[in-house]
Amino acid sequence: MPDATILELFETPSDTPFVIEHIAAEFTSVCPITGHPDFGVVSLRYEPRAAKDGGKCIELKSLKLYYHSFRNKGSFFEAVTNTIREDLVQAIDPVWLQIETDWKGRGGIRSVIRADHGAVPGHFLGR
Amino acid sequence: MPDATILELFETPSDTPFVIEHIAAEFTSVCPITGHPDFGVVSLRYEPRAAKDGGKCIELKSLKLYYHSFRNKGSFFEAVTNTIREDLVQAIDPVWLQIETDWKGRGGIRSVIRADHGAVPGHFLGR
Amino acid sequence: MPDATILELFETPSDTPFVIEHIAAEFTSVCPITGHPDFGVVSLRYEPRAAKDGGKCIELKSLKLYYHSFRNKGSFFEAVTNTIREDLVQAIDPVWLQIETDWKGRGGIRSVIRADHGAVPGHFLGR
Amino acid sequence: MPDATILELFETPSDTPFVIEHIAAEFTSVCPITGHPDFGVVSLRYEPRAAKDGGKCIELKSLKLYYHSFRNKGSFFEAVTNTIREDLVQAIDPVWLQIETDWKGRGGIRSVIRADHGAVPGHFLGR
Amino acid sequence: MPDATILELFETPSDTPFVIEHIAAEFTSVCPITGHPDFGVVSLRYEPRAAKDGGKCIELKSLKLYYHSFRNKGSFFEAVTNTIREDLVQAIDPVWLQIETDWKGRGGIRSVIRADHGAVPGHFLGR
Amino acid sequence: MPDATILELFETPSDTPFVIEHIAAEFTSVCPITGHPDFGVVSLRYEPRAAKDGGKCIELKSLKLYYHSFRNKGSFFEAVTNTIREDLVQAIDPVWLQIETDWKGRGGIRSVIRADHGAVPGHFLGR
Amino acid sequence: MPDATILELFETPSDTPFVIEHIAAEFTSVCPITGHPDFGVVSLRYEPRAAKDGGKCIELKSLKLYYHSFRNKGSFFEAVTNTIREDLVQAIDPVWLQIETDWKGRGGIRSVIRADHGAVPGHFLGR
Amino acid sequence: MPDATILELFETPSDTPFVIEHIAAEFTSVCPITGHPDFGVVSLRYEPRAAKDGGKCIELKSLKLYYHSFRNKGSFFEAVTNTIREDLVQAIDPVWLQIETDWKGRGGIRSVIRADHGAVPGHFLGR
Amino acid sequence: MPDATILELFETPSDTPFVIEHIAAEFTSVCPITGHPDFGVVSLRYEPRAAKDGGKCIELKSLKLYYHSFRNKGSFFEAVTNTIREDLVQAIDPVWLQIETDWKGRGGIRSVIRADHGAVPGHFLGR
Amino acid sequence: MPDATILELFETPSDTPFVIEHIAAEFTSVCPITGHPDFGVVSLRYEPRAAKDGGKCIELKSLKLYYHSFRNKGSFFEAVTNTIREDLVQAIDPVWLQIETDWKGRGGIRSVIRADHGAVPGHFLGR
Repeated sequence: MPDATILELFETPSDTPFVIEHIAAEFTSVCPITGHPDFGVVSLRYEPRAAKDGGKCIELKSLKLYYHSFRNKGSFFEAVTNTIREDLVQAIDPVWLQIETDWKGRGGIRSVIRADHGAVPGHFLGR
Repeated sequence: MPDATILELFETPSDTPFVIEHIAAEFTSVCPITGHPDFGVVSLRYEPRAAKDGGKCIELKSLKLYYHSFRNKGSFFEAVTNTIREDLVQAIDPVWLQIETDWKGRGGIRSVIRADHGAVPGHFLGR
Repeated sequence: MPDATILELFETPSDTPFVIEHIAAEFTSVCPITGHPDFGVVSLRYEPRAAKDGGKCIELKSLKLYYHSFRNKGSFFEAVTNTIREDLVQAIDPVWLQIETDWKGRGGIRSVIRADHGAVPGHFLGR
Repeated sequence: MPDATILELFETPSDTPFVIEHIAAEFTSVCPITGHPDFGVVSLRYEPRAAKDGGKCIELKSLKLYYHSFRNKGSFFEAVTNTIREDLVQAIDPVWLQIETDWKGRGGIRSVIRADHGAVPGHFLGR
Repeated sequence: MPDATILELFETPSDTPFVIEHIAAEFTSVCPITGHPDFGVVSLRYEPRAAKDGGKCIELKSLKLYYHSFRNKGSFFEAVTNTIREDLVQAIDPVWLQIETDWKGRGGIRSVIRADHGAVPGHFLGR
Repeated sequence: MPDATILELFETPSDTPFVIEHIAAEFTSVCPITGHPDFGVVSLRYEPRAAKDGGKCIELKSLKLYYHSFRNKGSFFEAVTNTIREDLVQAIDPVWLQIETDWKGRGGIRSVIRADHGAVPGHFLGR
Repeated sequence: MPDATILELFETPSDTPFVIEHIAAEFTSVCPITGHPDFGVVSLRYEPRAAKDGGKCIELKSLKLYYHSFRNKGSFFEAVTNTIREDLVQAIDPVWLQIETDWKGRGGIRSVIRADHGAVPGHFLGR
Repeated sequence: MPDATILELFETPSDTPFVIEHIAAEFTSVCPITGHPDFGVVSLRYEPRAAKDGGKCIELKSLKLYYHSFRNKGSFFEAVTNTIREDLVQAIDPVWLQIETDWKGRGGIRSVIRADHGAVPGHFLGR
Repeated sequence: MPDATILELFETPSDTPFVIEHIAAEFTSVCPITGHPDFGVVSLRYEPRAAKDGGKCIELKSLKLYYHSFRNKGSFFEAVTNTIREDLVQAIDPVWLQIETDWKGRGGIRSVIRADHGAVPGHFLGR
Repeated sequence: MPDATILELFETPSDTPFVIEHIAAEFTSVCPITGHPDFGVVSLRYEPRAAKDGGKCIELKSLKLYYHSFRNKGSFFEAVTNTIREDLVQAIDPVWLQIETDWKGRGGIRSVIRADHGAVPGHFLGR
C-alpha cells in the first residue's frame, strides 16, 4: 500500500534555484471499481528550497520504491495524483511541485491528470 | 439514448486545484438526416471545485457508459457537443470545463466542435 | 453553378458560445482563363449567434452540396473564397466566420487565400 | 443484425484479371460477453472472376451498409472475420479474397485477425 | 465523357527498353449511384515498344485532358480503372502497362484498384 | 500466481484456416532476484485447428485475466515466455502458436524473447 | 528578361479585407558572376485594396509567366527579391505585400531574403 | 541546346570494378508543346570499364554544364532521358549505366522515367 | 577488469527451441591508446540448448555486472566484441549466439562490429 | 598529402570471422579542378583474416589521421575512393572490404561512389 515513509531525502546542493524532473514510465495501480490494473506515466517536477533554507531533494531509488508501493492499491486516477502531490509536498516542502499522470486507455478512454503546488518558476514556463 | 443519469460521481480528493483530461477515441452516434453512423474523438477537460466546496469528479466507467448511450442516437455534431457540455456541467458544477469533438470525415468534410464553460485555468494555459 | 439556396440551417443548440470547424478536403472548381480544373481544401470556422438570438448552424450535407455546386464553375481562387464567405455570412449571420482555401499547385505555384468576418473569439485564439 | 442480403453486385468490367481493395476504418460491433462496443478496421482484398465467367464486384455503398449491419451484433472478433469472409465468398465467388480485421485495444490488448480464400494472385504478392 | 480520341502519341525516342511512370493526383469522376463526386490518384506505369517496332509514348498534356474527360462521368471505381487500362493499351500497344487507382474515403471506406497488362519488366521489379 | 485454469475457450468459427494475433501492451510480473516489477508487451499469434477437428479459440477477457495472474509472480523473462507458450498450447492445441515478449529496460538492458510452437503458416510469412 | 508588363490584373472581388498567398516552388534565374543557374522558392503574400477603392489582384498564369521571364536573367538574389517587390507593388498598389525568396544551396550556403511593403495585417500576424 | 561535346572525361583510377552515382536535383528544360519550363531530378548511376581497358569517368563540372545545356531546349521527358543515356553511353562506354529522371508535377501529374544500359552489377543490386 | 566469473546462469526453462535478445544501451569501456571513454550499445542474441541437454540461460543482473566490469578496461572495439562473444559462448555453450556492438562517434568516426557463433536459427531469420 | 604510412595495425583478436564498420562523417578533400573543398561521409566495412593467418585490424585513431591527410589533396571523388580502397587492402589484406563515399552537393549534384574488394560475407548480406 502507498507508503510515504519509504521516501528518503538529501540536502539540496545549492542556494540558487534549480528545477528537477523525474519521469516514471512504469507506474501501475489498481482500479478501485473493477480490480483491473491501471498503467500510467508519472511525471514529477519540482524546485527545492535553497540549501540555506534547509531545502531537500528526493533520493531516486526511494522514489521508485514509493511508486512501487501503489502496485496493489485500488485508487482512482485523481486520488493517486493528489496523494503523490501531498506526500511529496509534505516530505520536501518545495518552492514548486507539479505531478502529471498520463494513463493508458481503458475502455477506449485515455486520461491525463495534472496537479500543482505553488506557481511554475518563471524560467520553467512554457516547457 | 443519451442518459446523463448513468453518470456516477465521487468526491474530489483535494482542496488544491487540479485539472483532469479524458480523451475518448471511440465515440459513435448517428446522423439525424441519413441515419448513417458518425465516428469521433471526444475530449473532456475540467477542473473540479475544491473538496471543501463539495467538488465532484466523474467516475471513468460511468463516463464510458454515458458516451455509449449516444450509440444509436440521431443527433447533429453541434448538438452532441452541447449536450455533453450541459450534462457534465450540471452533474459536477466544475470551475472550468471544455468539450472538444473531432469527427472523422463524411462526404470529404472533417469537423471539429469546441465548447467551453468558464475560463481556462491560468496554470493550464498554453498546453 | 454555385447556389447558396442549397444551404440548409438548423437552430443552434445552445446559448453558450461555441466554435465549429468544417474542413472540406475535396473541393474542385474550374479556372476561368484556361477551363482546367482546380483542386483545393476549404476550411470554414465560425461561432454561431446564441439560440436566444436566433443563431443558426449550417447543416453539413447541404454544405457539401453547396461546395459541389462550384464543380463546373469558372472562378478565380480569390472570388471562390469571397463568394463562400459572403454566402455563409448571409445565411447564418455569425458572430465570427473565417474561410481559408488552400489550392494545389498549378504551373508550380501553390496558393492560400484567407478571408475573415468579425474578430476571432478570445478562447479560440492561438489554436 | 449482420445481413448479407444487403450486398449488391455488379458485373465485373473486364476479362483481364485485376485486384480490388476496400479499407473500412469505421467498423463497430459489440462484445458478446460484456455488451461493450468494439471498434476496428476491416480490409477486404479480392480478385473477381473474369466477366466472361460471370464475375461479380461488390457495390461499395451496399458493402458499407452490410458492415453497418454488424453495429449492434454481439460477436467475437474471430466470428466477425469469418462471417464476412463467408458472406463475401458466397456473394461473389472470387478467384481470391482476403479479410483482415484490426481491432482497437480492449483491456490493453490489441487484436488482428486474418482469413484468406484462395491463393494471393502472383502479381499482387509483395505489396 | 471519357474520350480516348483526345490521347495524342509521339514516337518513342529509343530502341532500348525504358519505363515511364505518370502519377496524376487530381483525378475526379462521379459515383454512378449517388451522383456524388469521387476523388483519386491514378498511377500509370508502362514500357513502350521499341522505336523500330513503331513504339509510341503518350503525350502528357493529352493524358491530362483524357483524365479530365472523366470529370462528370458516372462510373464505378472498377470500371474507371479498366477503361483507362483498355484505352491506353489500345492507344499505345505497350510491352507492359499498369494502372493503379487510389480513391479517397467515401462512407469511411478507402479503395485501391490495380489492373495490369503484360508482365512487369525484370529491371523494374522491386521498385 | 499464474493460473491457466482462468483461460476460457470457444469453438473456432470456421473450417478454413485463419490467423489470430493478440498484442498485450500492459503485462507486468516481478523479478525473482530483486523483487522489482518488470513491464513488457506480450504478443500471441496462432492458427486454431479447424472447427471439424474440434479447434478452439481463446476468449479475450480470460486471456487478459490470465496475463493479470502473473502480476505478483517472481519469474525470469525466459520462464514467463515459456510458461505462456506451454499453457496456451495445452489449452488450445493449435496448428501454430508464437509468443514474443518485449521487456522494457532494466539496468539499461532491454530484452526480447521469442518462442514458437509449430511452423509459421505459409500465407502468414513475411508479415 | 524580367518583364512586368506580362502581369495581368483583375478587380478584387470584395470590399472586406482578405489575404492572398502564392508560393512558386520552381523559380530559376542566373548568377550574374558565374552565369550558373540559381534555383529558389518565391513566396508572395498580399492584401489587395478594397474593390470600392479600385483594388486589384494578380492573375495567376501571368504571375507564372512573369516569374519565367527571370529564367535567363543574371541577377543577385537580393536584386531578384527587390525587383519582384517593386514590380508587384507598382502593378497592384496593395495594402500590404511581402516577398520571401528561399534559395537552394550554392557552394554549401543556403540563402533566404525577405522584403515587405506596408504592415502585416493584424489578423494575419503569427502565421 | 544539349551539347555532349561539353562532357570531359578522365581515366578511371582503378582496374577493380566500382560504381558511381551522381544525383542532380536542379535540372530544368522546356516543354516542346507549351514552351513552359520543366523541373526535375536526374540520377546517373554507372560502372566504368577497367583502367586497363581504357575505362573513363565523367568529370563532374562538365556533367553539370552538360545538364545546363538543356536549359532552353524544348524536349519531352522521354527524349531528355534517352538523350542523356545515349550521350553518356557514347562518351564513356560503361559496363553499366542507368538514368532516372523524376519530374515535378505539371497539370497535377508527376512523372518518373527510367532507362538502363547493360545489367545492374551484382554487388550493387538491392541498394 | 572484464571478469566472466561474474556471469551467473540458470537452467533454461524449456526443451523447445526459443531465442533471447538482450540490448544493453549503456556500455562503456576505455580507449587503449588515448585513455578516453568509449560508449556503445551491446546487443546479445542467442538460442540456448534444450533443458534436457543441460541448456543454460544468462541471468540478467549478472550480465549487467559483467558488462560493467569493462568500465575501466582499455580495449579496442574489436577486442571487446570478441571477448564478450568468447566469454558468453564458453559460459552457456549455446546453439547460436551473436554479438553486435555499435559505438558512438569518436573523432568523427562511428563504428559497428558484429561477431557470430553458429548459424542463425531458421525461424529467427529476417527479423 | 594522403599518406598510408600513418595507418597503424593491431593483430585481430579472433580466429572466428567477424565484421567491422567505421563511418567517418567529417571527411574533406579538395576539388582538383576548382580548388574548392569537398565534404563527404566515408564508410569502411571489412572482415579481417583470422588471427592464425596473421589477420590485422586498423587502429581507429590512425585511420582518422589517414583520412585527415586528404585535407589539402586535390583529387576526384573516384580517385579518393579507390585510393582508400587500395591503401587499406594493401595494409590489412582483408577477406572482404568495402568503401562507400557519400559527397555533399556541389553545383546542385550529390555523388555516391562505392568500391568493393572480395565478396560480401554471407552472414553480413542484407544489412
